Amino acid sequence: MTTLMEVAQRAGVTPATVSNVLRQRGKVGAATRERVLEAVAALDYRPHLTARALAEGSTPTLALMVSSIANPFYPEFALAAERAARRSGRFLIVCNTNEDPVMLRAYLDQIAGTLSEGMLVMNAKVDFEVLRKTQARGTPVVLCLWERPETPPGIPCIAVDFAAAGALAAHHLLELGHRRIGAILAGGLDGVQAPRYEGFCATLKLENVAHPDSEVRFTTDSVQGGYQAAVQLLDEHPDLTAIFATNDLPALGAMHAAADRGLRIPEDISVIGITDIQLARESRPGLSTVAVPTEAAATLAVELLEALIDGKAGGNAPMQIAPVPVLVVRASTGPARRKKRRRQTAERSRGKR
Amino acid sequence: MTTLMEVAQRAGVTPATVSNVLRQRGKVGAATRERVLEAVAALDYRPHLTARALAEGSTPTLALMVSSIANPFYPEFALAAERAARRSGRFLIVCNTNEDPVMLRAYLDQIAGTLSEGMLVMNAKVDFEVLRKTQARGTPVVLCLWERPETPPGIPCIAVDFAAAGALAAHHLLELGHRRIGAILAGGLDGVQAPRYEGFCATLKLENVAHPDSEVRFTTDSVQGGYQAAVQLLDEHPDLTAIFATNDLPALGAMHAAADRGLRIPEDISVIGITDIQLARESRPGLSTVAVPTEAAATLAVELLEALIDGKAGGNAPMQIAPVPVLVVRASTGPARRKKRRRQTAERSRGKR
Repeated sequence: MTTLMEVAQRAGVTPATVSNVLRQRGKVGAATRERVLEAVAALDYRPHLTARALAEGSTPTLALMVSSIANPFYPEFALAAERAARRSGRFLIVCNTNEDPVMLRAYLDQIAGTLSEGMLVMNAKVDFEVLRKTQARGTPVVLCLWERPETPPGIPCIAVDFAAAGALAAHHLLELGHRRIGAILAGGLDGVQAPRYEGFCATLKLENVAHPDSEVRFTTDSVQGGYQAAVQLLDEHPDLTAIFATNDLPALGAMHAAADRGLRIPEDISVIGITDIQLARESRPGLSTVAVPTEAAATLAVELLEALIDGKAGGNAPMQIAPVPVLVVRASTGPARRKKRRRQTAERSRGKR
Repeated sequence: MTTLMEVAQRAGVTPATVSNVLRQRGKVGAATRERVLEAVAALDYRPHLTARALAEGSTPTLALMVSSIANPFYPEFALAAERAARRSGRFLIVCNTNEDPVMLRAYLDQIAGTLSEGMLVMNAKVDFEVLRKTQARGTPVVLCLWERPETPPGIPCIAVDFAAAGALAAHHLLELGHRRIGAILAGGLDGVQAPRYEGFCATLKLENVAHPDSEVRFTTDSVQGGYQAAVQLLDEHPDLTAIFATNDLPALGAMHAAADRGLRIPEDISVIGITDIQLARESRPGLSTVAVPTEAAATLAVELLEALIDGKAGGNAPMQIAPVPVLVVRASTGPARRKKRRRQTAERSRGKR
């Protein structure tokens, strides 16, 4: 992308002059003006809003609190939120709370209302009292990716129907003939990913497919966590034909665990996750997953926060619902093993005739 | 980790009371004091510096400018820098410049000296004039991961001998018998990754191994970029037995490209990268790479920045050199193809006797 600086260099003027020409302010001679506009045209420069804010010396900032910057989902969300914030000329700063409520509180106390006009908070281990205090001091807060649209949290938020995501994953595996499905839940039954597991379980129940407690493992939201959980599941239940994980990172770990014991994916075991992070697309085999509307949710979150800042959001604690999650089928899921073997046997006997 | 809040809840007091007891300040009754200390002991609570800063209402902050938050190396560096910053009770905020010099300048103008006492800058496309202006306004700046220790940039920095990293990668491949090695350079010959490629080329030259210009591809620092570059290299030079990439992301892309055309890694083609991001450890096969001292460099950067803030850094533009990069051999590199075939043939003929 062409920058103001490059235009200035080409035209042989200062960036301030370029800015003056573009905004029709200040005194700029006709010849200089022409040189600048020529450079703008030659370089196809499009002044963006942040350049304008920069020139005006005021740069309103939003802050995004993430619980773990090392989890690749958060940078992806941050990037989308930043894109949305820049549309209105705002900057985004990212604060990593390392899943520590004290850190979250400290960031909110220090940054809200001083550097940042508004706070986007990812809701892992959030203390609602702290958020309410921030609001009470006059700084709007938006909870991003609230996981239970059916029960609004009483704080402005963007909700994602994560139970539907779990249900979609379960449905996909059932359609492929899987009846013995292990589950990996990142966090616990009271954690932010629990609704995904609830949606998965409800779908299995509807279809009368058993899912005993012994076939779920609780772990951390990481590749390593998923790996260890899958090792246990595959050790104790070798008849499983599929593994559902509540997030892509543990799903990728489950794939590695299966590969390390020589199981073929998806011939011997299918694996599915939730989120559709970049890694899901780039792994081999590609990970089937249920895509969360990251881009749309980030945009909605920024728009809601900006509406709150401008006093234009309706209601006390508006909740907006992001588009529904969507199943993305890649190479990590296929027909259940038993069925496949039967078919192969049938083919072999046909071949003999 | 136990938090102040949890201690307070267990003791039935406010967090402020817990803080007062721990810091022996304020008036706290003996019975309350005992309850708090009991809770501290029971929960094994260790007050950290940030909690102390929080209690004192002053939270000094450092800012880290990264050029691409979506590149997983940066969050890893940010996490290490944050850990270092917290040791002295400071917070770290992360700003993503999206490789846009205008954004970097805007962040520096807005954040330096207001919210942040000092700035850590990752040096992709950095305009040194802008950094000098920030310094001139009284806010220390540290350039992280300066890639040419032999030519200090004139701005406080942490240098990493990236040419040595490239040399180590080349040496490893040469030792395995590779003589036909393709290269993928993320960025151009004038980019921040160029010294890695220079180190690689110098080592090949020393060993009289040819590396014509037709066997290097320039691409973006991404899995996708590496994929496309590797497809071209493998199409045009099917006799290559190894690929060196100047970073792990394009190296992972090269592995995918090889896998997608049915080449076995490392039997048919070896792949090596530089950095040792988490993905390198978690891919299958694991990626051989040259590990950059991320943790040490981040710690040095924060320490240098803090010394500058405290007026304790020696010299005008101190440069500290991080520990040397280290070769990490995983499953993606092995003996060169031709050698292997010869050996296999020999084994086969032995078998016939």
